Amino acid sequence: MNFGIIRRVLGSLLIVEAVLMLPGLLIALSLKEASASAIAIGAVVTLLAGGGLLLSATQTKSTLRSTDGLAIVALGWVLISIFGAIPFLLSGFITSPVDAIFETVSGFTTTGATILEDVEILDRGIMFWRIFTQWIGGMGILVFSLALLPALGIGSFQIFKAETPGPTVSKIAPRMKNTARILYLSYVSLTITQVILLKIGGLSLYDAVLHAFSTMGTGGFSIYNDSMGSLSDFVQVTLAVFMVLASLNFSLYYLLYQGKWREVVRNQEVRFFFSVIGMATLLLTLNLTFRYHFTFLRALRDGFVQVTSMISSTAMTIHDFTEWPHFSQVVLLILMFIGGCAGSTAGGMKAVRVLVAGKLVKREFSKMAHPRAFSPIRLDGRIMPNEVVAGITSFLALHLIVFLLGTLLISLENYDLVTSLTSVAATLNNVGPGLSLLGPKNNYAFFNDFSKIILTLLMLLGRLELYTVLVLLAPRKWLDES
Amino acid sequence: MNFGIIRRVLGSLLIVEAVLMLPGLLIALSLKEASASAIAIGAVVTLLAGGGLLLSATQTKSTLRSTDGLAIVALGWVLISIFGAIPFLLSGFITSPVDAIFETVSGFTTTGATILEDVEILDRGIMFWRIFTQWIGGMGILVFSLALLPALGIGSFQIFKAETPGPTVSKIAPRMKNTARILYLSYVSLTITQVILLKIGGLSLYDAVLHAFSTMGTGGFSIYNDSMGSLSDFVQVTLAVFMVLASLNFSLYYLLYQGKWREVVRNQEVRFFFSVIGMATLLLTLNLTFRYHFTFLRALRDGFVQVTSMISSTAMTIHDFTEWPHFSQVVLLILMFIGGCAGSTAGGMKAVRVLVAGKLVKREFSKMAHPRAFSPIRLDGRIMPNEVVAGITSFLALHLIVFLLGTLLISLENYDLVTSLTSVAATLNNVGPGLSLLGPKNNYAFFNDFSKIILTLLMLLGRLELYTVLVLLAPRKWLDES
Repeated sequence: MNFGIIRRVLGSLLIVEAVLMLPGLLIALSLKEASASAIAIGAVVTLLAGGGLLLSATQTKSTLRSTDGLAIVALGWVLISIFGAIPFLLSGFITSPVDAIFETVSGFTTTGATILEDVEILDRGIMFWRIFTQWIGGMGILVFSLALLPALGIGSFQIFKAETPGPTVSKIAPRMKNTARILYLSYVSLTITQVILLKIGGLSLYDAVLHAFSTMGTGGFSIYNDSMGSLSDFVQVTLAVFMVLASLNFSLYYLLYQGKWREVVRNQEVRFFFSVIGMATLLLTLNLTFRYHFTFLRALRDGFVQVTSMISSTAMTIHDFTEWPHFSQVVLLILMFIGGCAGSTAGGMKAVRVLVAGKLVKREFSKMAHPRAFSPIRLDGRIMPNEVVAGITSFLALHLIVFLLGTLLISLENYDLVTSLTSVAATLNNVGPGLSLLGPKNNYAFFNDFSKIILTLLMLLGRLELYTVLVLLAPRKWLDES
Repeated sequence: MNFGIIRRVLGSLLIVEAVLMLPGLLIALSLKEASASAIAIGAVVTLLAGGGLLLSATQTKSTLRSTDGLAIVALGWVLISIFGAIPFLLSGFITSPVDAIFETVSGFTTTGATILEDVEILDRGIMFWRIFTQWIGGMGILVFSLALLPALGIGSFQIFKAETPGPTVSKIAPRMKNTARILYLSYVSLTITQVILLKIGGLSLYDAVLHAFSTMGTGGFSIYNDSMGSLSDFVQVTLAVFMVLASLNFSLYYLLYQGKWREVVRNQEVRFFFSVIGMATLLLTLNLTFRYHFTFLRALRDGFVQVTSMISSTAMTIHDFTEWPHFSQVVLLILMFIGGCAGSTAGGMKAVRVLVAGKLVKREFSKMAHPRAFSPIRLDGRIMPNEVVAGITSFLALHLIVFLLGTLLISLENYDLVTSLTSVAATLNNVGPGLSLLGPKNNYAFFNDFSKIILTLLMLLGRLELYTVLVLLAPRKWLDES
């Protein structure tokens, strides 16, 4: 482990976090809210911790192993969540440390699961910080999955293996900076566009900004107890459209910027993603029209919004969908697992992985008819190396294994099976609400601390794509065997 | 398609089925039961249909394509189920054709899910036929998976690819006959041993034989409404042990017969299977001791019996486990999916496939630590070809896809989610009972005909390992693409 670099990066991260607490602080100060001091203390403590880490970082060798990169990412997410929880705790809006860390991890992982029973009582400065964590987390995951990991040459969860330039820090930095800059630009300009549209739709600037943060990060924290319920049709549909935009692979925006729209249109993951949205919207529309009291148009509108909200793992809600027919609920549950595109802020297993699994199944059928043929898996016309396919299938297997083990642990609390299953599905896939006791009208407050800690860990596992976190916990010896 | 051979094989199959109806008929006649005529008519109709098929079979070319073999297997299972349902219908014990076919498919696929609300009212001859179908189905699946498929060289769902001798009938027959003979011998001698033990345990000969049929086929139909509930400890544990024996790969018995016990002991699938049983028994024992009113010994005994009953997909029950803590229920649900070993009469995804998925996940971890290493997957010391690994992962993916689609279709009836989910899990994995409304005290009678037909199809899909059935339904053109 290269502890020098790890400390330096983590220290800088905390200093950035302290700076990011300032907008919330300014809002609180300008409104003379009592919780301003809580945010201020939080920012100062975070700044000091970051500075301490920076100063303690001794200059060491400049080579960076892949495990160093993973350690930075995993520890980084944990650290900013711990320090980010300070304002909630000091303000008194959340009294239990476990709850505060749950809420902060939920924000930074862009999950949007809350332990707050009434979000409308929050001060505006604290609320800003709560919602802002999702936007920061969304940015973080883009840099992590599209810039850092490819630069480190860690290929398992990448879809396309980057040509690795040999992992030393000096070589990684320029590549990363370039990619990251394009990501920042796309992310920020989409956010600004959405704020403008929401303003046009009648929201106040504060509401527009906060809703844009929640959807661009695909987190789904709301500033209202009824989530999207009381917003106008125009605003709801705008939110849904930007959820979809945030669920697309951000490298597509770079392609668009380069004028390569043909590549974007032909992208198989995007096509698959939109087919799933179309199919699910159709199923919900029919189900809600014929088996529920909705008119066709209302079923279509609400079906579309809820489908995009779910598959993008934002999961803001118009209605309490736990009252919908079970068929619609099963559709939504499946969408939670599929998730958005790779390289987006969305959660879930990711559309491209599901697509590749489908291609594997289809190949097996062809093989039954033509036993001697064994063709490679292709994506966007290119042959996927066996290694990448194996990485994808083992990711899917691990996702299910973690899902089942998580469900086992949560079921120790003996709530009904659907509550246990969907609490894990909603956190591991970074969605937010679940079914049964975890429907849109409810929250995670009722779980005991043990379950909350497990669910917090699941959000991190889901966000950091499992291996990143687990490899750091695995015993060295076990990793060396094969 | 080689329709000549397909007709000849299917015709012979029906004639064999007619003969296999005779024991039940003899019992009914000797007890002067009214339903004797129903069985007699069933046997005659089946015999005539079989004879008709045989006579209509023209002599054609002797080459057999793999799709011909699959057609024989899939159509064979469907045909014997349809004709096997006749005695139930004519006797009046089951009045709806959909129900009768559900019950017969459930028997022949060794699922053990029943639509009968009271099994104890059945005549003894009819009951014999009902239970006997499971034993016949168990034999059938052994021949299918260990003799027919390898001989046809269809490798996707095989674990070890047999050296294929070129698929012409004359060459297949001797190989198959030899393997099949060994299977018959193991299966019959295990059954006889179990009957003797159950007799010693105090059961009547009739009861002993029927219980042996239900466990060796890992079907789980019971002759009592409370399943194993009122049987003695000795009988319950004997049944559990034989469920385990029936869930082992039957080629192991051949190895034992050859004195190669060392290979059997070292077999990785067997070790994994027993580890899962051990771990699950431990978890249930602890859960039932500390969170339920069982004493440690009772929890251990009942936990072991229920774990083996579930993982072997027999699913005879001592208690209503839907009353147990949810943790235990989740454990049982996971066991349903894992299932027994390949080449056994058990259902589920099969231990070896789960084991290989685990190995894939573990390899990915090693790769994180050593990015340049990419080692092959080994089983029992041998390297698995990429093709076989891909076959296994795509099987698992298809199993989950079918599970989800099945759940969607069943959820149209709008029962609670756990009922819908476990109805599909219990039929696709050929287990029998599920959770919620499908617990041990209940049955499948309440579903509408649409759901029953879907569940019947799922039992066939599960038993014939998905591809076998689906490839016959797939459009030709789709198969030719890749």
